[in-house]
Amino acid sequence: MIVELITTGSELLLGQIINTNAAYMAKELNAVGFDVVYQTTVGDNRERMQAAIVHALTRAELVITSGGLGPTRGDITKEVSAAVFGRELSLNEVCAERIRAHFDRVHRPMTENNLRQAMIPAGAHVFTNYAGTAPGIALEQDGKVIVNLPGPPPEMKDMFERSLKPYLQRKYGFASVIVSRVLDTFGIGESKLETEIQDLILTQHNPTLALLVRPTGVIIRITAKAATTEVADRMIAGVEQEIRRRVGTYIYAVDDEPLEEVVGKKLLAQHLTIACAESCTGGLLTSRLTDVPGSSAYLMGSVVSYTNEVKAAILGVDRAVLRTLGAVSEPVACQMAEGVRRCLGTSVGVGITGIAGPDGGSAEKPVGLVYIAVAGLQGTTVEKKFFTGTRSQIKFQATQTALNMVYHSLIHR
Amino acid sequence: MIVELITTGSELLLGQIINTNAAYMAKELNAVGFDVVYQTTVGDNRERMQAAIVHALTRAELVITSGGLGPTRGDITKEVSAAVFGRELSLNEVCAERIRAHFDRVHRPMTENNLRQAMIPAGAHVFTNYAGTAPGIALEQDGKVIVNLPGPPPEMKDMFERSLKPYLQRKYGFASVIVSRVLDTFGIGESKLETEIQDLILTQHNPTLALLVRPTGVIIRITAKAATTEVADRMIAGVEQEIRRRVGTYIYAVDDEPLEEVVGKKLLAQHLTIACAESCTGGLLTSRLTDVPGSSAYLMGSVVSYTNEVKAAILGVDRAVLRTLGAVSEPVACQMAEGVRRCLGTSVGVGITGIAGPDGGSAEKPVGLVYIAVAGLQGTTVEKKFFTGTRSQIKFQATQTALNMVYHSLIHR
Repeated sequence: MIVELITTGSELLLGQIINTNAAYMAKELNAVGFDVVYQTTVGDNRERMQAAIVHALTRAELVITSGGLGPTRGDITKEVSAAVFGRELSLNEVCAERIRAHFDRVHRPMTENNLRQAMIPAGAHVFTNYAGTAPGIALEQDGKVIVNLPGPPPEMKDMFERSLKPYLQRKYGFASVIVSRVLDTFGIGESKLETEIQDLILTQHNPTLALLVRPTGVIIRITAKAATTEVADRMIAGVEQEIRRRVGTYIYAVDDEPLEEVVGKKLLAQHLTIACAESCTGGLLTSRLTDVPGSSAYLMGSVVSYTNEVKAAILGVDRAVLRTLGAVSEPVACQMAEGVRRCLGTSVGVGITGIAGPDGGSAEKPVGLVYIAVAGLQGTTVEKKFFTGTRSQIKFQATQTALNMVYHSLIHR
Repeated sequence: MIVELITTGSELLLGQIINTNAAYMAKELNAVGFDVVYQTTVGDNRERMQAAIVHALTRAELVITSGGLGPTRGDITKEVSAAVFGRELSLNEVCAERIRAHFDRVHRPMTENNLRQAMIPAGAHVFTNYAGTAPGIALEQDGKVIVNLPGPPPEMKDMFERSLKPYLQRKYGFASVIVSRVLDTFGIGESKLETEIQDLILTQHNPTLALLVRPTGVIIRITAKAATTEVADRMIAGVEQEIRRRVGTYIYAVDDEPLEEVVGKKLLAQHLTIACAESCTGGLLTSRLTDVPGSSAYLMGSVVSYTNEVKAAILGVDRAVLRTLGAVSEPVACQMAEGVRRCLGTSVGVGITGIAGPDGGSAEKPVGLVYIAVAGLQGTTVEKKFFTGTRSQIKFQATQTALNMVYHSLIHR
């Protein structure tokens, strides 16, 4: 079943609101096996809307609009849809009665223009609006269907779920389900990852594979289409296994579980505690760790040591090393990690020192240079990284790398 | 100037991501007087994408796409655009060199597929991508223009602002300008604010006034449309003056300058330093303060004291008070603020202790209860707050309140 979505409204065309309706409808329709191949947005302009619907009917069997069903003169979607199929509108008494009852209920007088919402094209299926006043409709002709849904997202979603889905299931049956599974990776770039699994991406048509770059790393989305969820799950499992065989070492979670949560679970399961000494990340790592409910069970505390004095006085970093090698150096990162571990008496200590920019870089120590150390039961490991981007992006990448290092120190125990 | 926007990508068609690019581009184009009359979304399918671009050119003079410029085989937008105008692609050495330099900078090997991004249609204007690797292009033919921008929003926005807007201004000129000014408030609710300036909202048509609720507080947006920026600025200034006369005490910034930046400037100007002792906010306050470039001039460091032991051992909070009144109490907040100020030798100390939830609340100390103290040159002030929302929302509101308290302690000196 080929579907086109048409979202209407000047606010969308002017960019005053973001089009969440299109994403919602697309996701729901794809999940039951319908193919959304185009989405169009058009304003409250009779001629252009009519052209958009007529054009959509040339390339889709089902055209679903949202928006333009309200009481004002700018609300023209039903009239335009009726015109496309050559139908007349007339007042639907059941709809009119519902609208009158609504105004009684909220103790407000009903202005006459509200009855425009009860004008229904001849032969339409009517969808009651349980979350507002404007009813929706479905118009069938020559094997094609036009559906009009309201624009406000709560009304659209309620009607989609309660009325449109049952209507579509009765009319077309739901051929399939679409199930997606996300593999969250870190430490491998998009192009490298593509090279590793290129043959799978090219040959797989069901499940399909897609790579997406996120601030947290690259994700691999496996999407299967099948008659039932069970079958789809089995299809995904087969591809997932092959991907894990090749690049499993980079996969830290499924379905976008945050890395701080993954690390928290490992710490909890192994009865370990953690503390951080942060310089250029300025507390962001600790803040991410404490975003996880229950993190007080393993996160004891942290020290943000922005100055050399704090690094030396609280964390015990060697003043001579700070003087000779500078704060952004490998030994300082290690001493920060070890110092905060000792000072707070935890199993694991993390130390981060670097240059978040935009100023403060040099040829030898450029903006984006960050040293990250993890001190644990098997000693201390340290990594030297070069990050790019804005100050906030560099901070975030440093925390993601630190979490990943802690994660690997915990799974390899 | 009639414009059509084409956003591409399976993630959009499948509803996996929301189309923020279309809203951004529409808003920016409308602001300079261009008419966006259609927005279309199409997948990474050669035939359908080509049909969409060809159809768009029948009804618009300028067609702007976003997405599909990356290194993978699914990235076909430039090829399809070139095909529509009958152009060949070839490797652009300048673009290729930039991509190689990027991989050098991040010390990672470049896989060959990355050079696909440097394949440029004959005769294209090239837009450098300063926020990523894939360049954008503009193709002109028979009075029509196709522009290809990258899909990731930070890259698209950067290129739109730096390269596309100047290109469009040179080519078409800008008919009118829309200028907005945002007044950022904190400490006053939306309905109270609306009551205070209701008459202005109702009577103003140009400039218009809008209230929007943000996590940082309620903002007042003043928007004027005029022939030139100067005229629009003057129109805005008049309304702003009247708003400030009524609710100026709640306005801490204009145009969404973050409160941490406002506070940072005050500290810098007054040659003061700051340190934080954070419990329930877990480092978020310090992380926000260090998001500001140059914050190392006034932020000395912080202690995240998640346990009572850290509060007592490092910050010197009275163990007897912790035992009798508990960690979430007014005296503990004050002693944390005073302790971190003393310990790090700063002018200002901030102490935050509370219950971020979702667990750990009681009838007496519910989730959302937070004490915030600021210790400064004129002694210590403390506030007791009840926040609502998720764990992250409670953390954020506590940091915003703390920053606002520091801000007021600095402007009232």
